[in-house]
Amino acid sequence: MADSPNCDLKSLSPLQLFERVTEQGEKVRALKAGKAPKDEIDAAVRMLLSLKQSYKTTTGQDYQAGLPPKDLVLINNGTTKEEDEDFVDPWTVQTSNAKGVDYDKLIVRFGSSKIDTDLINRIERAIGQKPHRFLRRGIFFSHRDMDQILDAYENKKSFYLYTGRGPSSQAMHVGHLIPFIFTKWLQEVFDVPLVIQLTDDEKYLWKDLTTEKAYEYARENAKDIIACGFDINKTFIFSDLDYLGTSTGFYKNIVKVQKHVTFNQVKGIFGFTDSDCIGKISFPAIQAAPSFSSSFPQIFNGKENIQCLIPCAIDQDPYFRMTRDVAPRIGQPKPALMHSVFFPALQGAQTKMSASDPNSSIFLTDTPKQIKTKINKHAFSGGRDTIEEHRKYGGNCDVDVSFMYLTFFLEDDDRLEQLKQAYTSGELLTGELKKVLIETLQPLIAAHQERRKQVTDEMVKQFMTPRKLAFDF
Amino acid sequence: MADSPNCDLKSLSPLQLFERVTEQGEKVRALKAGKAPKDEIDAAVRMLLSLKQSYKTTTGQDYQAGLPPKDLVLINNGTTKEEDEDFVDPWTVQTSNAKGVDYDKLIVRFGSSKIDTDLINRIERAIGQKPHRFLRRGIFFSHRDMDQILDAYENKKSFYLYTGRGPSSQAMHVGHLIPFIFTKWLQEVFDVPLVIQLTDDEKYLWKDLTTEKAYEYARENAKDIIACGFDINKTFIFSDLDYLGTSTGFYKNIVKVQKHVTFNQVKGIFGFTDSDCIGKISFPAIQAAPSFSSSFPQIFNGKENIQCLIPCAIDQDPYFRMTRDVAPRIGQPKPALMHSVFFPALQGAQTKMSASDPNSSIFLTDTPKQIKTKINKHAFSGGRDTIEEHRKYGGNCDVDVSFMYLTFFLEDDDRLEQLKQAYTSGELLTGELKKVLIETLQPLIAAHQERRKQVTDEMVKQFMTPRKLAFDF
Repeated sequence: MADSPNCDLKSLSPLQLFERVTEQGEKVRALKAGKAPKDEIDAAVRMLLSLKQSYKTTTGQDYQAGLPPKDLVLINNGTTKEEDEDFVDPWTVQTSNAKGVDYDKLIVRFGSSKIDTDLINRIERAIGQKPHRFLRRGIFFSHRDMDQILDAYENKKSFYLYTGRGPSSQAMHVGHLIPFIFTKWLQEVFDVPLVIQLTDDEKYLWKDLTTEKAYEYARENAKDIIACGFDINKTFIFSDLDYLGTSTGFYKNIVKVQKHVTFNQVKGIFGFTDSDCIGKISFPAIQAAPSFSSSFPQIFNGKENIQCLIPCAIDQDPYFRMTRDVAPRIGQPKPALMHSVFFPALQGAQTKMSASDPNSSIFLTDTPKQIKTKINKHAFSGGRDTIEEHRKYGGNCDVDVSFMYLTFFLEDDDRLEQLKQAYTSGELLTGELKKVLIETLQPLIAAHQERRKQVTDEMVKQFMTPRKLAFDF
Repeated sequence: MADSPNCDLKSLSPLQLFERVTEQGEKVRALKAGKAPKDEIDAAVRMLLSLKQSYKTTTGQDYQAGLPPKDLVLINNGTTKEEDEDFVDPWTVQTSNAKGVDYDKLIVRFGSSKIDTDLINRIERAIGQKPHRFLRRGIFFSHRDMDQILDAYENKKSFYLYTGRGPSSQAMHVGHLIPFIFTKWLQEVFDVPLVIQLTDDEKYLWKDLTTEKAYEYARENAKDIIACGFDINKTFIFSDLDYLGTSTGFYKNIVKVQKHVTFNQVKGIFGFTDSDCIGKISFPAIQAAPSFSSSFPQIFNGKENIQCLIPCAIDQDPYFRMTRDVAPRIGQPKPALMHSVFFPALQGAQTKMSASDPNSSIFLTDTPKQIKTKINKHAFSGGRDTIEEHRKYGGNCDVDVSFMYLTFFLEDDDRLEQLKQAYTSGELLTGELKKVLIETLQPLIAAHQERRKQVTDEMVKQFMTPRKLAFDF
């Protein structure tokens, strides 16, 4: 870690260190809220990670927002350990490792379960089809209670899918497609209803936006989501700002969750502070409520006990850990989850692709030329410095962003393996690998743009109208 | 103050005292939430008041929940001042003074304005009618921005009325009628729309109730409110649990308020703590939002700028101080207010009538016999101990609960003055004064019961259906 602040921190007490971490966390949030330059944010996040490490070294405990140190086990022997902790919450993903976040550690930290070969085989048997490449390649790598979902499915009991998006700007990038591509596949193979939440209220609360603008983004994003090919008879897309005022069930579930979660809890889970607005503090309940089928009486005929499965990126898990904690106390089934890895930024897997940094992202609106230029110019390479060295020692697929992107988007397993071997052996050069990625993404994005053009305002309105879907409950 | 804890508190630091007050406040809330016996709650409240007094004596500042002492001016000279501070928040009203809360001091503390003779005269000129007895007798005693309302009215600009009730049980007592009686009069003389909020969500959050039960109470209470004689063409009654899911405007205003109020602020205003659920913490926005006409697009045709006037008991003012603080920041007009005094408990004006203590209250469901017994048995008397003494020295109307109730319910000013003089001179005995009150309340409550019987479920449904009222906007 380049700018380790540990040297001057050794003399601080655990409580002083705790306060430094809290302060730095607030600084990071403020920089993000104020849309500060990316390098400034990155530096602040690095400092935060380093402070957390010092805190852990001193106290022997992980820093938890809102929970000052107690029952300290002092393990500080005067040396500082190597930074080995990734930072993951719904707003920030940061690691010092070029291979990306250590997902096995995250499973242990979050208390979820690995999607292992046994589970993938069981899914294959249940659906009688080859599992999606995101499963085959560990892109959806973690789950909660998938066994229950499969038990239910095998016993002809229905469930439903719930995923979502925070519509912060009109431009979505390819990373945003991951949960939708996978959810579409799940919907097709299991043939179940799907609800998609657009948290325009969240974006209004967190950003400098009017409610009207947030709602406009929601509708624009809905077009991109619809362009993924969801079945209009099986899918309900909703904006919170809109649906909360048109559903007889949604608010009742929100207030039930809100009764069973304290400020202390959201402080611990999300790092909220006393200076945060009460809208942010109560928002987690709004992301929780669609996990309960009674939030959608028009779809489930008012039934309360339909099991929910949530495919999402792992950074959304804190919301659903909270939801699963509350569910039994309000007489509702716990939602099951399937977690994906993050979609890496072009610059490398230390952080995820972010729409607020155009150079880190390939947008769904990019032209073939822009795609080509961005990949050639910005995609972090695992290749060697010279052709000679590359031929001799080979490239490193573990850190090569072009190769990572191909694992997401190249359907052909054999071809992918071939590319890996050729790149690792030095046979394939970085430029050639990038060319494969460019040729994979260009038609994929062009096709998306073509489908999006077909999405009319009328279709958006239909998808977003509360209604019965093609299922009987 | 009987059980003053000041003796052992003198050695405590301001911060230690602050913590003792905070603890005691939490204890009071816990006792209330747990429905502890009344005397236990009263003792805890007395202790709280006393601790607050010690805090003030030591620090020279009023205790403010969530705001630890700073910039201390130490005025503790080793003596303890007489308790002179009333305690008023939306959940507790307590004073050591048998005459009741010192409302002039409350006006200064809350920063509102007195409803003085000038204002009452201006209202009389504007409406061309004698002002309501609640105005003539100082029962509605404080206001905010009534001049603006009258300016608007004189310039033929419309406004609307907003009042409400927390439906905690099926039984309403006579004190609950005060805001509704006055609001009905305001509606008649100004001929304006009225919205009445039933905060069933609040009751769900604060009490051990299901949402279904809270909603049932809301509908039952609506019957008593309708029985006050509101015009169905000019009045919209709504349950939060119900209306939030049927209004396109309500939630948008809630989230706007929630964006502009921090946890620190609600901590300071309402005394919330980190252990409170996020539902309570965000609830104030739900009581705030009906102050904005865009929460009722069906009534105001989506118009945002219609001025609102809120008649309510003074203990609800904290919600609307907060609302008025937020209003300009979300581009909405500040609501105007008219505040009433509390309706005293039968046992005396030290606290308000409470539905949770049957002996402190005359319920709207009480029989003539129950009314008679309760008044004779429990109404605190300002009379003397013996008839001889009473004849010689006379009774004290300032502390006599029967006389206080007559100021609320006896319309005839001359008769009231006559009674006052006769009681004060000793000519009228306590039993005779109680008889007048019994004979005033019995027919009033019987008539209410008769009107309530006429209220059908269909009428409740109509009042609670979002719809256009008999006004064009």
